[in-house]
Amino acid sequence: MMPLIRSSGIFLWSHMKYRFFNANVMISPEQNIFKGELCTDGADIVYVGKKKNEGFIADREIDCNGNLLMSGFCNAHSHAAMSLFRGIADDLPLEKWLFDRIFPMEDHLTEDDVYWGTLLQIAEFVRNGITCFADMYFYPDTIYEAAKKSNLAVALCGGINGESNEKDLRFIRDHVDLYSTMSDRVRYIIGLHAEYTCEENLISDVSDIAAEYGSKTYIHLSETLKEVGDCTVRHNRLTPPQYLHKLGFFENGGLAAHCTYCDKDDLALLKQCGVVPVVNAASNLKLASGVAPVYSMLRSGMKVALGTDGSASNNATSMFREMYLFSCLQKEAMKDASAVSAEEALTAATVNGYEALGFRGGVLKTGNFADIILIDLAAPNMRPLSDVKKNLVYSADSSNVLMTVAGGKIVYENGKYDIGEEISTIYREAEHRRDRLLHEAGFKE
Amino acid sequence: MMPLIRSSGIFLWSHMKYRFFNANVMISPEQNIFKGELCTDGADIVYVGKKKNEGFIADREIDCNGNLLMSGFCNAHSHAAMSLFRGIADDLPLEKWLFDRIFPMEDHLTEDDVYWGTLLQIAEFVRNGITCFADMYFYPDTIYEAAKKSNLAVALCGGINGESNEKDLRFIRDHVDLYSTMSDRVRYIIGLHAEYTCEENLISDVSDIAAEYGSKTYIHLSETLKEVGDCTVRHNRLTPPQYLHKLGFFENGGLAAHCTYCDKDDLALLKQCGVVPVVNAASNLKLASGVAPVYSMLRSGMKVALGTDGSASNNATSMFREMYLFSCLQKEAMKDASAVSAEEALTAATVNGYEALGFRGGVLKTGNFADIILIDLAAPNMRPLSDVKKNLVYSADSSNVLMTVAGGKIVYENGKYDIGEEISTIYREAEHRRDRLLHEAGFKE
Repeated sequence: MMPLIRSSGIFLWSHMKYRFFNANVMISPEQNIFKGELCTDGADIVYVGKKKNEGFIADREIDCNGNLLMSGFCNAHSHAAMSLFRGIADDLPLEKWLFDRIFPMEDHLTEDDVYWGTLLQIAEFVRNGITCFADMYFYPDTIYEAAKKSNLAVALCGGINGESNEKDLRFIRDHVDLYSTMSDRVRYIIGLHAEYTCEENLISDVSDIAAEYGSKTYIHLSETLKEVGDCTVRHNRLTPPQYLHKLGFFENGGLAAHCTYCDKDDLALLKQCGVVPVVNAASNLKLASGVAPVYSMLRSGMKVALGTDGSASNNATSMFREMYLFSCLQKEAMKDASAVSAEEALTAATVNGYEALGFRGGVLKTGNFADIILIDLAAPNMRPLSDVKKNLVYSADSSNVLMTVAGGKIVYENGKYDIGEEISTIYREAEHRRDRLLHEAGFKE
Repeated sequence: MMPLIRSSGIFLWSHMKYRFFNANVMISPEQNIFKGELCTDGADIVYVGKKKNEGFIADREIDCNGNLLMSGFCNAHSHAAMSLFRGIADDLPLEKWLFDRIFPMEDHLTEDDVYWGTLLQIAEFVRNGITCFADMYFYPDTIYEAAKKSNLAVALCGGINGESNEKDLRFIRDHVDLYSTMSDRVRYIIGLHAEYTCEENLISDVSDIAAEYGSKTYIHLSETLKEVGDCTVRHNRLTPPQYLHKLGFFENGGLAAHCTYCDKDDLALLKQCGVVPVVNAASNLKLASGVAPVYSMLRSGMKVALGTDGSASNNATSMFREMYLFSCLQKEAMKDASAVSAEEALTAATVNGYEALGFRGGVLKTGNFADIILIDLAAPNMRPLSDVKKNLVYSADSSNVLMTVAGGKIVYENGKYDIGEEISTIYREAEHRRDRLLHEAGFKE
């Protein structure tokens, strides 16, 4: 039995000072890559430039050997603990996947299951260069516990369901209060699971709380054609975005996961409300849900972020795969090989995600989080070095991630993880809990 | 200037004897994975089983630490030397990509360029667990030289164009003769570039040569809607498969790359002729060419293989990405999350490719090539170990390849390459040649 150490909640920042030198530096996807260096002090970047930062005394000098230093990725939509369900419900129709496999196992999830499942996913996150994530799942305090242990920045996203009731509304208020003052590496975003799982009184009441706090909101939106169709039938022809808007849900903007079936009116409305669509291309593809209209979103001037969704549907947390699909599925959908560039995919995976979640990251600049990854340019899939940004989106994968730094702490380096628990312990706990859940759900003796 | 050492043509087999023990062994995707071991002697597998192969004296004993031993991948359609063009023609419309960028550079390609470009691609192949490939490009003897140096099995695929002429027909005969007796690690497959680049007399004459030798053939087939439409206009409503069949091109079966726009009659005809479609999902997606009807192919009982195509269009040689897209693009296209299973994708990437090219590989059994890869199961994206086959297709990437063995030689192990030339030399030569080609094509001062 794992004793959960309930800490005071303050992130245990790294107090190390690092100097990364001899690097190719990508400040952001919009800027040219230059040869230079970067210094971190504790959780923050304190210098980026072409010349040496004279006078800076580092605890460790890291020779980047000409490799690429760039922002870590923001995974703006995940259900991290669903890592426990990876590989147990594949190649099934959507309804069977959800109702016959996933829900019966989720019925038996404990707080400790979520802790270890989240840490397993975080191990995969850092292997893939993800330094920040938004997570919507059961037991947000436990998700925070795991994020804090690993030092990743996390946006805890509410995802309640059903009828409005005092307990849930109290839960939201308590969590907003708790996490708004705790650390700049954590947020609590007021949220609902989805239009089709929430009663109107709940949506209204949650919208009122968001208005009171001046908070943005988060929801699963227009993920399937069925969801949109059912909503228009139930709510006098209003699509999910229109219906939520009518109830005041997006009064202060927010994030909407999926947006697979948003038409031009929906997109115009979301843009007007300042809502950021979080595209989950791999999950939508594998569940046969559809391809989000990313091209239209971008051309209408919306900022779009990327998410991996949970490992029961995706099944990986590769932002490389998400960027590839973000771009290439649009090329195919629009029958135009020039639609959605590599740079747009990189911006979605870094700058836009950090900005949408309200974290100071996504761009390598002084004062921003030391959320940084080192990408191997001396690997055959990155050669020739004709265009590093194209290579990142169209040919790179997690094998190119040499190092991941989250909040100034080296959480992954050359096969080694430093995320608060031993990797072998995480694997053992995850498999033990997967076995128990399969058993309790009646799938295994 | 690199002096090409023209060898006698015999593969320099490894004469090492290896024992891989403490492994999880996947004989083929159709069979259950078991704990066991495997022995190789020179180029071949000499033992696979659950128990120790008593009496076998290995030169090196390799502890697999419980990781997965499986067949190497067969990349059944590539233009390896196009690695030189990676990252120089992305996010462009198809016609502009081909006519304004690729063709002008190909006009200046030398034999040495092809040698170094092919080796660069082979480095990426072995990093991705590819042990065997079919290649259609200029200078087949040079492609063979590179394959021999690295020890990969290669099918050299003819890809001539234009009018029939004695020189080209002589070239085909000479190459079939040369490579049919040289080694069982090389083949020459009689082929044409595509219906739309070949005159009728060439197709007829090449078909006659294939008939004479009793040989299978290879061609790019129905890759774009334009190709199919133009063919039906030119050839009395015959689609490319129908037209080629009429001219006797598939008399002894063969392979057809892409098959993106094959309708049910085309597929029935190809099946009747014993033609194996080689699907190139990533390349088709990025060039906005379409999604091949893999579901229909498989349900009609066809064996389908996978290819990466060239790095100017894909831009990676990840069989993991190809398997993922092979399955998931069908789920989306058929609006059925159960369409095309992980096991079917694995079979296409291993068994079917080897069989279509006529190599004794794709299945781990005594007498087959020692074309083997070791997959890291102790990585977070493979955990929990609920279903290793699902994990291979839906969450693995090249970071999970620990070791690649081609023809009994360890060509990749833990970041180190042994492919006949130093990796640093390959990078330097590739970038130098890329620069020269850009200059000669007028793209760079």
